[in-house]
Amino acid sequence: MSSRTPADVLAILDPRHPQGFDFADPGRPALSVLDLAATRGDGVFETFGVRSGHPQALEAHLARFERSAASLDLRTPPLDLWRRAVLAVGGRLAADDFAVIKIVLSRGIEGADEPTGWLHGRIAPDHSIARTDGIDVAVLDRGYRHDVSSTSPWLLQGAKTLSYAVNTAALREAVRRGADDAIFISSDGVVLEGPTSTVLLRRGDHLLTPDLGLPILDGTTQGSVFEFATSRGLTTGFSHPTVADLEHADGVWLLSSVRLAAPVRSLDGRPIPVDREFTDALVAHLFERRG
Amino acid sequence: MSSRTPADVLAILDPRHPQGFDFADPGRPALSVLDLAATRGDGVFETFGVRSGHPQALEAHLARFERSAASLDLRTPPLDLWRRAVLAVGGRLAADDFAVIKIVLSRGIEGADEPTGWLHGRIAPDHSIARTDGIDVAVLDRGYRHDVSSTSPWLLQGAKTLSYAVNTAALREAVRRGADDAIFISSDGVVLEGPTSTVLLRRGDHLLTPDLGLPILDGTTQGSVFEFATSRGLTTGFSHPTVADLEHADGVWLLSSVRLAAPVRSLDGRPIPVDREFTDALVAHLFERRG
Repeated sequence: MSSRTPADVLAILDPRHPQGFDFADPGRPALSVLDLAATRGDGVFETFGVRSGHPQALEAHLARFERSAASLDLRTPPLDLWRRAVLAVGGRLAADDFAVIKIVLSRGIEGADEPTGWLHGRIAPDHSIARTDGIDVAVLDRGYRHDVSSTSPWLLQGAKTLSYAVNTAALREAVRRGADDAIFISSDGVVLEGPTSTVLLRRGDHLLTPDLGLPILDGTTQGSVFEFATSRGLTTGFSHPTVADLEHADGVWLLSSVRLAAPVRSLDGRPIPVDREFTDALVAHLFERRG
Repeated sequence: MSSRTPADVLAILDPRHPQGFDFADPGRPALSVLDLAATRGDGVFETFGVRSGHPQALEAHLARFERSAASLDLRTPPLDLWRRAVLAVGGRLAADDFAVIKIVLSRGIEGADEPTGWLHGRIAPDHSIARTDGIDVAVLDRGYRHDVSSTSPWLLQGAKTLSYAVNTAALREAVRRGADDAIFISSDGVVLEGPTSTVLLRRGDHLLTPDLGLPILDGTTQGSVFEFATSRGLTTGFSHPTVADLEHADGVWLLSSVRLAAPVRSLDGRPIPVDREFTDALVAHLFERRG
């Protein structure tokens, strides 16, 4: 290992290696064009922040990773192996910076019946302006009814899959509308989630997030936010919010593992109040958390 | 080039190469783990049959490839380059066999702003049993209304993207139900398409396929089927079929570029008539076509 802190770090799961994984040069090709990650988006992933070498909310991310894999009938290598590999990658990243690790499990090379797994770590992009100034958000139809997870599990809503083309298309549509990000609503008008974030709203001393029975991801950052809220004397809960609920909220945020909490300052052009002090405290809490 | 016919052939687009592409060893990794094909399913593809070195319905596939790329705001290298690369890959495949070429364009390595493109050819899998004996099909909800393409283009219905996790999950759900394949219906009851195929139904002397305004792919094989039907004196058309229309049809097929035409012999366990003579003639037509 070089004494120089690397810009990015790649580790690949390898059942033949005594550790179960090995480091590789992130600048060189590592995947077959026949890998179902690349040809079918057929796999799952997690992304989390790494603060001073400590992965944040690691157990929540690993638990969701395993649930996502189960939704896709994907065999997951033991979580203990992923945990060790995450810590090894985290150990190679710069200790002083805020870094990000992505872990990916795909169904592997077509016909080979052996999953492919990798971990990639790097310095996190700078989201400080979004956290302080807030973001403009467009509301977009996700096309699904709010109850589609229970009626049609093959739609994989609730699994964090590699099939993110719709999520990235929604972000491009938001930019086309002059916004920075998007919030999806169900075809029957329930607020769901952002393409890469969980929605949080505040109404007086109550923090709310969309109910987990909805076709959304179980937000790992949202758990940390609710802990913070409770410590500040706020109550928390889950609901089926509407766009009107967002418009009349005392604050709306998009939560994610690396941008942490971005206050929404407008929704389809209509202003939303931004509480700078509360947001700063929330971001500081998320930034410093270890577990 | 070896005089031995290779089992599979890989070519990678390369703007620095005088040809615009170069051959590579398909057994070696060619993709970065940072390629958005692998991390976001953010790209488009086409798959087509190659008969005696001649790619089938190539122009229809290239046109759809370009439309899919446009839906994703992806810059497409010139179709002429793809055409030349396809013919070069086809020329290296075994001339006597039925082969398949997949062409893929991804948004490329995150942040690099340069798309990745590749072509992979190999001998086609043997689908003769599905073509002659027929397939059992399960009907599955696609979750979207029939008009979602016009209301919500960011859902990318109609684009052949690499984000196929739902398609493969639907096929696994079909197998779980004891079927071989699936037909998607819209949340409001309109028959759409299979996860990797176009639906065709026959009513007397009339062949029908779901209307292109629906959230489905513009089937390239379906065009060839309609030409065949016209040559046999059948009329053809587009409609908004229901499951009842399939159940009362004189025949239902799933059309695709490599399996060609697979007659549906049962739908959710209810038998559907299979016309062996018509199917054999249709498959022979599709198998032998050049253009």
